[in-house]
Parts: sequence; structure tokens; C-alpha cells
Amino acid sequence: MTEFELIARFFTRPPRRDGLAITGVGDDCALLDAGERLLAVTSDMLIEGRHFLPGCDPAAVGHKSLAVNLSDLAAAGATPRCFFLALGLPRADAAWLEAFARGMLALADRYGCQLLGGDTTRTPTLGAHADVSGPLTIAITAMGEVPRGSERTRGGARPGDELWVSGSLGDARLALAHARGELELPAADHAAVRPRMEQPEPRVALGVALRGVASSAIDISDGLLGDIAHVAARSGAAVEVEAAAVPRSAVLAAQPVALADAFALAGGDDYELLFTAPAVASAAVRTAAQAADTPVTRIGRVLAGSGVTVLDADGRPLARRFDGFDHFRA
Amino acid sequence: MTEFELIARFFTRPPRRDGLAITGVGDDCALLDAGERLLAVTSDMLIEGRHFLPGCDPAAVGHKSLAVNLSDLAAAGATPRCFFLALGLPRADAAWLEAFARGMLALADRYGCQLLGGDTTRTPTLGAHADVSGPLTIAITAMGEVPRGSERTRGGARPGDELWVSGSLGDARLALAHARGELELPAADHAAVRPRMEQPEPRVALGVALRGVASSAIDISDGLLGDIAHVAARSGAAVEVEAAAVPRSAVLAAQPVALADAFALAGGDDYELLFTAPAVASAAVRTAAQAADTPVTRIGRVLAGSGVTVLDADGRPLARRFDGFDHFRA
Repeated sequence: MTEFELIARFFTRPPRRDGLAITGVGDDCALLDAGERLLAVTSDMLIEGRHFLPGCDPAAVGHKSLAVNLSDLAAAGATPRCFFLALGLPRADAAWLEAFARGMLALADRYGCQLLGGDTTRTPTLGAHADVSGPLTIAITAMGEVPRGSERTRGGARPGDELWVSGSLGDARLALAHARGELELPAADHAAVRPRMEQPEPRVALGVALRGVASSAIDISDGLLGDIAHVAARSGAAVEVEAAAVPRSAVLAAQPVALADAFALAGGDDYELLFTAPAVASAAVRTAAQAADTPVTRIGRVLAGSGVTVLDADGRPLARRFDGFDHFRA
Repeated sequence: MTEFELIARFFTRPPRRDGLAITGVGDDCALLDAGERLLAVTSDMLIEGRHFLPGCDPAAVGHKSLAVNLSDLAAAGATPRCFFLALGLPRADAAWLEAFARGMLALADRYGCQLLGGDTTRTPTLGAHADVSGPLTIAITAMGEVPRGSERTRGGARPGDELWVSGSLGDARLALAHARGELELPAADHAAVRPRMEQPEPRVALGVALRGVASSAIDISDGLLGDIAHVAARSGAAVEVEAAAVPRSAVLAAQPVALADAFALAGGDDYELLFTAPAVASAAVRTAAQAADTPVTRIGRVLAGSGVTVLDADGRPLARRFDGFDHFRA
């Protein structure tokens, strides 16, 4: 059972429009009716050893925990407003907490996103292992505002749209490969890609600038191709992506091409925005990107049909398979 | 450092009234401005081995995880509307998940509270212990509606108010004592108190019925006296509570008086409502309780001053100290 099958099977029900909920399970954010504005709401859980490495700089952990939620708000085109923090701690370590709070609240302040509540609990020791506590766990629910009429989901891509991505992809996966000893980067290269893994910058300004321009958007957390597949499925359309067009940093581009392709196309943990827009809106996309001071690249197009096709530099479908990240894949 | 000191020290900032946030950190719920209505938002994390026992019936775990959040909404007088679920699972066990979802969604349906989103992740194995996964972790953020003008917090108790509590207290702690082997209950007694620990019933109807009647409210999760202390501190008032007046079940009342007192006054995990109301409103309190089909008991009063005093049956302050639950107490 994959994470997505699991959610679909046990937790997805037909949405009930009851005057508050506008959209629900299955998008980056749920949308709530809140008078003049709509509220976009998203919830993410990060666990030490899964989403960040044990011993990681606590300020970076604080930053990343909020950043992944702001990235979901960015996909929905929401302006961040507030968040709620549930924290499971193996111990009450003042130095760690001070740095964690500093990293988190610095990012929150930068986007005017207030911490309004939460819960703090201690993780228990584990059964037969009285010396082992449950891992540090951070669950955040973040909320942002979307002007009425500017709603944007994963499901709005239409045949004829172009496919775009912000920034560059694969650096977080490259930094993880170094941390895991799968390869060894020169010190300067490691210094360049490590912040992409530990302190991703949510594309909030771009998400807002693309209101009324992008027809759909999603943030790339599980790997580009997996996230494109979500857009294709929710939009009822097919997507073609040109592998060579997918932007990568100079550090990643210097790696062997098979590895660079795999990390850019399916590495995960990128927190860049993937979005679609009608071909006639390409100038508007570039204007929005400029306003948000964020690079964007056209990497493919939306067609009638279903599924995702990856094309090589000659426009031929690639036979190679790329797998996105799934927590529960066997 | 206690849980409360920890939150105060690192995560509490002066609230910023920015058109969305009305109240923030430090109450059962934050209140948001959402047009005609106010939204009450609360967030709680439950971890196996801390908030429920390993091996507990998954339907009960699903129920309790949502119930503790609905209990916070009840304190704020909110009508539950929707919730977000972040789930950290040691494994994808279909039978467990089916029962968990069933228990959770049955309670959600009963109160018209829609599941609108969330996150599912796998807990990692722990360092040197490749055979041990992080514990099952459930973080829920729940939202409810409060009519404008019916806001209610912990901070509204005024000298002259009476102190009330719903239901009876201490049974959850008694069931925990049995589960831990601190004492042994006869089978019939255990069957009577076990649901109080595993499947608490949030006092949603009472919370709503007390709108405009109660001057303050809090739900009892950390033990009666600790939660009274929160009300006293936030209200800038003193509270006197009569130990003998604190309601307890027949099963608890049959226990030795020192144990029954300790469990009723400081046991925790009760999820009853503690609230205050002006003395002139006592008939309105009883009417509200009747409308909500929920027993209530007057257990004390609010005075000018500060702190909490526990009185014995003769009205003399009790010397004995009762400690509420704190996750981080050394």
C-alpha cells in the first residue's frame, strides 16, 4: 500500500459542501470559506530520521518544518497568515529549543505568519528499550489567505497549457546522497547544495504572483515526476515533460547525466513550484516570475489523455523509469 | 522546565492583531476572524505509550485522538466543523488503519466535523535500534465556529463567579492505575471506568449551550487543580475549590478517600468542562446543562486575589499537595 492508496482507502470521503469547506482531502491545501477571504489550510508532519537527519542544526530544523508548510500555501497561491505547532520532544533541551524556535520564527516573521497555538509533549521511551525515546516529531498546520476568485488547485491543468517549474531541482537529493555516503562531494559543492536540503526556501512570492496566471500548481516534495502525475490525474489530462529541460544547478549538472536526471526528475524534497499556464499566458508567467524575483523554466506541456511521458532531447519517450518518494513503498 | 514554562519561554510572543488573529497562544483554542463567524482552532498531538497504551484498540485510539481536540473546541464554545490529521505510522497495517479511521470518523460524523486534509508519514527506525520504529503519532488540528460575540476563553472568571464542572472526575486515572498494575479493580469496575480513559466523550453540546452563560471555560486534561490554576492565572483572580464537592463516579467513590481525592483533583485525562459563571446565572447554568443532557456540579468560587485553595469538608484549606500532569516535570 502506498501513502496515496492508504489515504484514498481509509480517509477520503466525498467532500460535503457545508458552507465552510470548499475543497478538501487530496490537494496541497484545503480551502475554507472565511467571509471576504478564503483560508487555505495545510498540515505536515516531520520526523527526525525521516525528514531531517539526526543531529541536524536545530535552527535549520525549525526553518524546514515551517518551510514545507509555506510551500503548500505557495502552491495554493495563499499569503501565509498563521500556524499551529505540535511538538513531540525526546527531552526539554533549552539550547536546542531556543535555536529551533529562532529558525522557525525567523522564517515566520519574514512572511508575517503568526504562531497562534499548539501542543508540546514528550515522546515516550519505547517498550523494551528504556534508553530509547521516540524521535523528535514536528506537526504544523499553517493557514493563509486567498482572495475570492483566485483559488488554484492541482486539478486545473488543461490541454494546451505549458508546464513550468521554479528554481532548479535535485540539489536536496544530491546533498542527501552525500550525507548518506552514496557519493562524496567536494567541500565547495557540498556547501552549495546542503542548504537546499536543510533550509529550503518556500516560493511564497511566486505563488502569490501567479494568481490568475497559473491554471494549476503543486509544490514538489515527492519528486518532480510523481508530483506531475498528481497534476495529470487530478486534471484529467496527460503531461509531457522534456528531461533535458528540467533545470538543475551547476553542481548537479556536473554529475554523471544518469544520476543528475534521476535526482532532478525524482529526487524529492525540492519545494519548488510546479505549475501550468495557458500557452498564451507565457509572457504573464515571466512577468510574475520577475516580480517575485524567482527563476522559472518551461519544461513540458499538457495534452488530452492521461499519464506522464518523459521525452529525451530528441523528443522521444524515455524508456527508463524514475520513482518518486513514497513513505510506504515496500 | 515544565511544559508551560517551555512554551512561555520559546514560543509565546505578544499577539499581533492583524485582522485575522483575535486570540492566540495560551488558550484551549486560538480565535480567528472569518467574516460572519469566528473560527476556533486547536492542535493536539497524541503519542502511543504517552497518551494511549501500546496495543490499545485502534478504534478507541481514533476516537480519543479527535475527542481531545473536540474537547478544546467545547471549552471555547465552538461548534466543530473540520479537522486535519497528520499521522506518523510505524507500518502501513490495513486492519489497524481501518479500525482507527472507523473510530475517528464515527465521532467526526456525530459532530458534523469533516476531515479536510492531512499528512501521512512512516516513523523511522531509531539509530542503533534497526528493529525499533518511532511510536505511532497522531497530530490533529480541529476547527469550529463561534458566533461573533460568544467568544469565551480561560481568562473571563471574575470575583463572585461560581466554579462548575461537568460529569465526574478521576475515572480515567483510575483505569490507568489498573492498567499500570498500581491497583487491581474488580472486572465490573474496570469495565465501567476503562472507556473513560480510552474513549472520552467531548462535552460539545454543553460547551455550545453555555454560550453567553459561562464567563470562562477550560477542558480538564492535565488534572482539575492544574487546570483551575490556568483559569485563575489567566483571569487574574483566586479560586477556592471544595474537595468533597468534586464529583466522582460510584466506582471511584468506593476507593480509599485519599486515592479518590488525588485522582479526582489531579488525575488528568478527564476531558470534562471546567467553567465559571456569575452566581446570578446558576439557574441558566442548570438550564444549559439540562438542554445538553450533561450533569454539572458547583465545586467552588472565584475571589479577588490569586492562586488556588482547596478546602476540606469543614471549609478549611487542605495542606496536602496535589500535582497535575506535566510532560516535562523532572
